[in-house]
Amino acid sequence: MSKAKYAFGIDVGGTTVKCGLFDAEGELLEKWEIPTRTEDNGRSILPDIAQTIKDKAAEKKISKEEVLGVGIDVPGPVLEGGVVNICVNLGWGVVNVKDDLSEMLGGVRVEVGNDANVAALGEYWKGGGQGFSSMVIVTLGTGVGGGIIIDGKILSGFHGAGAEIGHMTVNYDEADVCNCGRKGCLEQYASATGITRMAHRRLAKNRKKTVLENNDELSAKKVFDAAKDGDAVALEVVDDFGRILGRALANLAVVVDPEVYVIGGGVSKAGQIVLDAIEKYYKDAAFHSCKTTPFRTAKLGNDAGMYGAVKLLLG
Amino acid sequence: MSKAKYAFGIDVGGTTVKCGLFDAEGELLEKWEIPTRTEDNGRSILPDIAQTIKDKAAEKKISKEEVLGVGIDVPGPVLEGGVVNICVNLGWGVVNVKDDLSEMLGGVRVEVGNDANVAALGEYWKGGGQGFSSMVIVTLGTGVGGGIIIDGKILSGFHGAGAEIGHMTVNYDEADVCNCGRKGCLEQYASATGITRMAHRRLAKNRKKTVLENNDELSAKKVFDAAKDGDAVALEVVDDFGRILGRALANLAVVVDPEVYVIGGGVSKAGQIVLDAIEKYYKDAAFHSCKTTPFRTAKLGNDAGMYGAVKLLLG
Repeated sequence: MSKAKYAFGIDVGGTTVKCGLFDAEGELLEKWEIPTRTEDNGRSILPDIAQTIKDKAAEKKISKEEVLGVGIDVPGPVLEGGVVNICVNLGWGVVNVKDDLSEMLGGVRVEVGNDANVAALGEYWKGGGQGFSSMVIVTLGTGVGGGIIIDGKILSGFHGAGAEIGHMTVNYDEADVCNCGRKGCLEQYASATGITRMAHRRLAKNRKKTVLENNDELSAKKVFDAAKDGDAVALEVVDDFGRILGRALANLAVVVDPEVYVIGGGVSKAGQIVLDAIEKYYKDAAFHSCKTTPFRTAKLGNDAGMYGAVKLLLG
Repeated sequence: MSKAKYAFGIDVGGTTVKCGLFDAEGELLEKWEIPTRTEDNGRSILPDIAQTIKDKAAEKKISKEEVLGVGIDVPGPVLEGGVVNICVNLGWGVVNVKDDLSEMLGGVRVEVGNDANVAALGEYWKGGGQGFSSMVIVTLGTGVGGGIIIDGKILSGFHGAGAEIGHMTVNYDEADVCNCGRKGCLEQYASATGITRMAHRRLAKNRKKTVLENNDELSAKKVFDAAKDGDAVALEVVDDFGRILGRALANLAVVVDPEVYVIGGGVSKAGQIVLDAIEKYYKDAAFHSCKTTPFRTAKLGNDAGMYGAVKLLLG
């Protein structure tokens, strides 16, 4: 029997590092944060992480033998062997996170993953996807992120573009350019930014009564709040959002055919109205055998990365 | 060391059963066919297969110990454990192919798969996908079939709708109904039937000079033949085909992101013109990191199922 009773889950962002102490079953025992020091090409980031882990272990009187390992995610592409190849937000070039961090911790096992993929894995394991064999997660924030997990494995794609569903083209007549340089990406309509953009467009030619104002204060949250109050223009924008995302997921259904869809990110905080808008059009557009695939909201919020990082250790 | 030197690959169709004798490295040594006797709810099909395998083994003086196993595919959904749940084309209800065929062969190992998935596995192993880690195959025949293989595993989906890419919706304004009951499916444009349909539509309002005639003899083959000779209307149809399929695959790229695309089925026999038409629009529409994903034609033709069936045994 292994003596390992604890695991650390570390989620490295551009501003803060989220740290979690877990038991070996994946229960979060304690969480804390340290700043991400990106100066000097981010050379202090891994030593800072090693130090905070050592400090926490000392505080809790946890010996090295009791630590199953450290799972860690970073905002960039991760190659085989736990090597990170350029993390712009951290100031990193090529960094061997797995070996370097392990060495700083006296040989403790380290597993490394990409932040979006690892957060998806966390939601699959302990969040909205718990209990399902396969899951597609859609993260509606500033952009539209995605994650696909099949039988516990992340589908990351040959060039790392797997589950980049924010860049499915949904409108070949779009004039505005997406951040990726192409036009008509799902992200231009279904992200918080995209919803706001659609609201601006509707308001510019609007003749209906509405509480929404066509100014810089307009936001996806205001659109959903107004829609909940029955505002006609806001309801149209929410319907546009639901139609575009619901149809895109129906097309994804005949490719991946997951057991569940999980909707996360800031936009999902508007609640059931978001799921209802998507499901209405998804059911209408989906292939017969996939029409009843359930939709869930993400549960773990900003903790998803820490959970997923620990799951990397447990396999 | 195992004494197994041979494997049988069996591809069961509605009219004929294709049989292959392979060596343990997957080289096809000999192939033959027997009729599929569907009468009486197809009760003779498995005994016929068992008999032809025993006859071939006797002819070649192959002992039971020298047979690694029998891989078999059927035109219908296959559940865990090798049980087939309704094969309309064979007259079958629930049939335990794995156990029943194994028993008829004195305990020889049997593995079972769905025909479309197994054919994809064959092309991945020994055909157009050989040497690649992941592959999407598109089969352009009467309909549009698909297969997705990632790290040697078939992506079949929770409801069996994985890789049903012929039913991605590519046109929300289509008036004609697809075989699936929905409208605007990829299959309505990119299959042999779909290409012919598009040609009929163009010819109905055509004023250009063309060798194509708007009658029941029109076919996808005639369209591609005429396009190769520079026929203006045929070239337009081929361009429509390439745009619709190329864009659909670009959307699939940000979901699955395979290392290679393989194009098979009757339409692919028209050759390089098919790949060129698709790639032109794929490259234009694809996400930056996937633009250079190569396209290949399928190589194994009707033998793909036999090869894939043997691969089921080898894992």
